[in-house]
Amino acid sequence: MKDTLSQDISAVEAKYEAQKIAFGPITFQCAMTIRNTGILKAVADSRKEGISADDISKKTGISKYGVKVLLDMAASMKVVREENEHFWLLKTGYFLLNDKMTEVNMDFVQDVCYEGSYYLEEAIREVKPAGLKVLGEWENIYKGLAELPEQVRKSWFAFDHFYSDNAFPTLLEMVFKNPPRKLYDVGGNTGRWARLCVQHDPNVEVTILDLPGQLRDAKKQAEEAGLSERIHGHQIDLLDDNQPFPKGADVFWISQCLDCFSEEEILGILKRAAAAMTADTRLYILETYWDRQRFEGAEYSLNATSLYFTVMANGNSRMYHSRDMIKQVHAAGLIIDEDTDDIGLGHTLFRCRLA
Amino acid sequence: MKDTLSQDISAVEAKYEAQKIAFGPITFQCAMTIRNTGILKAVADSRKEGISADDISKKTGISKYGVKVLLDMAASMKVVREENEHFWLLKTGYFLLNDKMTEVNMDFVQDVCYEGSYYLEEAIREVKPAGLKVLGEWENIYKGLAELPEQVRKSWFAFDHFYSDNAFPTLLEMVFKNPPRKLYDVGGNTGRWARLCVQHDPNVEVTILDLPGQLRDAKKQAEEAGLSERIHGHQIDLLDDNQPFPKGADVFWISQCLDCFSEEEILGILKRAAAAMTADTRLYILETYWDRQRFEGAEYSLNATSLYFTVMANGNSRMYHSRDMIKQVHAAGLIIDEDTDDIGLGHTLFRCRLA
Repeated sequence: MKDTLSQDISAVEAKYEAQKIAFGPITFQCAMTIRNTGILKAVADSRKEGISADDISKKTGISKYGVKVLLDMAASMKVVREENEHFWLLKTGYFLLNDKMTEVNMDFVQDVCYEGSYYLEEAIREVKPAGLKVLGEWENIYKGLAELPEQVRKSWFAFDHFYSDNAFPTLLEMVFKNPPRKLYDVGGNTGRWARLCVQHDPNVEVTILDLPGQLRDAKKQAEEAGLSERIHGHQIDLLDDNQPFPKGADVFWISQCLDCFSEEEILGILKRAAAAMTADTRLYILETYWDRQRFEGAEYSLNATSLYFTVMANGNSRMYHSRDMIKQVHAAGLIIDEDTDDIGLGHTLFRCRLA
Repeated sequence: MKDTLSQDISAVEAKYEAQKIAFGPITFQCAMTIRNTGILKAVADSRKEGISADDISKKTGISKYGVKVLLDMAASMKVVREENEHFWLLKTGYFLLNDKMTEVNMDFVQDVCYEGSYYLEEAIREVKPAGLKVLGEWENIYKGLAELPEQVRKSWFAFDHFYSDNAFPTLLEMVFKNPPRKLYDVGGNTGRWARLCVQHDPNVEVTILDLPGQLRDAKKQAEEAGLSERIHGHQIDLLDDNQPFPKGADVFWISQCLDCFSEEEILGILKRAAAAMTADTRLYILETYWDRQRFEGAEYSLNATSLYFTVMANGNSRMYHSRDMIKQVHAAGLIIDEDTDDIGLGHTLFRCRLA
């Protein structure tokens, strides 16, 4: 056991860190507002010259009071630097302004999570997504996805797709090294991966295993893309252990799906997959594990995203530690024969077979 | 001009900092929840031994899922340390759990600011407290104070009084070094300072200048304390430049009041005070200025509190830079003949006289 406690920061620093946490919602709204009003862009455009509150006010049409009160806070946040009543961009401000990941995270937090997160304590105490009520009266967010207000839906999908899109090219190479003929996409949602597969390999047939609503969406999108011939649907409720998985797949593909379930539910899904596998079947699990990240910022984002699952999505799922997922893989009678980190933006791919 | 830009943090660190800001609301709710459920206390009580999620779950009645998902995030926030599936308290966690200032700040943010802060961009664009609507339909929060929901009111006053209570003993000594006979308390609110003055000095008479509602409150509280004989009220709307200040005071006292007004409004108040002063009158201004703080954490808290004024209180006031206040003092025909920092928790006292 390392004695990291004695290496902790000083009391003065810790009291400062505690205040950063205490004012976190205000910090966030300050960042959103300087981004959305063009104030941060005006500071960035001033480059080495710096810019006064007066000039920013003229450029943006925001009152001088508004510019100053926001940028004084932004200076405390070390997003900008302040000197002689002028402002300069700092690197953290650069990422708030220009980094696509930061942008999708901020929009996701504002549009999907902000108001509902107020109910986190209730969600934790009652193990249900207590914040979801601010968006609508559904049992979980997946049942409401199609009905979400447009801005919420847009930010939800931008967040979801941003992370997967970066991983897909590498994944296609990996999965099609030994080309499967029949690939079953478990929880395939709108069929994004299915369409990529049939485009990538002219011989593969993909079957999406999902709820009727998702299959309808996926079918429509496949038809619009002219790809419906080799994309099929198999209706299943992954939460119902009495619904067996269909047999005959070379590959089961479960991508960014198990994080939507509790450990017990994951075991149920993997056991049903195992029951439909032969010695030659491979099962792939694609996930982002917080312990497998190279950067502290990524670990931080994943653990924060977990709390979205707690308060907004379904109340009992999360971004897992890889150790907890591996436990369920083994409990389902499977072993991992290939384990690859750092795909796309921090994804990990497990290739599994019967033990 | 110092070249601090080249001394900025690395890109990797800045991207991390940007994610901390992007997930600030979730970070905050995580801290609230581990504090309120007793999870953080259970970690603290484990001291050097550390404690497992299982044991915390047993102690608190919170599900193991809930304990883990919160404490994994808390570990990313460096509030706790995690090793071998056990948790230990870090110093930042100590302050979240035990520091009174952190406690009043967090309760203030949750109960008064959280939901309304969602409307910060609207408040900035329209220069009005756009978030106040979540609490009630008032022009500003002062007009609604008496009607606020009990929990909101409690957190508002705990925040307000925590900061002033720490300053009052020193201030009484300073103001009564040359004992005034007639002290006019401008914006005296519920009369806390007035009561302290008449208790401190048997010869002083205090007149509170404020709105009728506040005077009613102050009168009632003075009577209950048996101190009403030397506490008087003078009804005035500080926002109305046509209402002159009464003459005859030895001392005008304006404590934590000017931060509730815009620079133009401050000038109007100070001009009317000056018009009622003689060469012997002294005017005291007590404020917390963000540039006069010894600690970064205090500067940060004050700039964040400014945005409460923007979005919740009245849309155009703030915690000022001392330079901006001094400008208005001079514009009103006054000079500062005594300037004292570091009173209580970072207050500054200006003693002013006619120029």
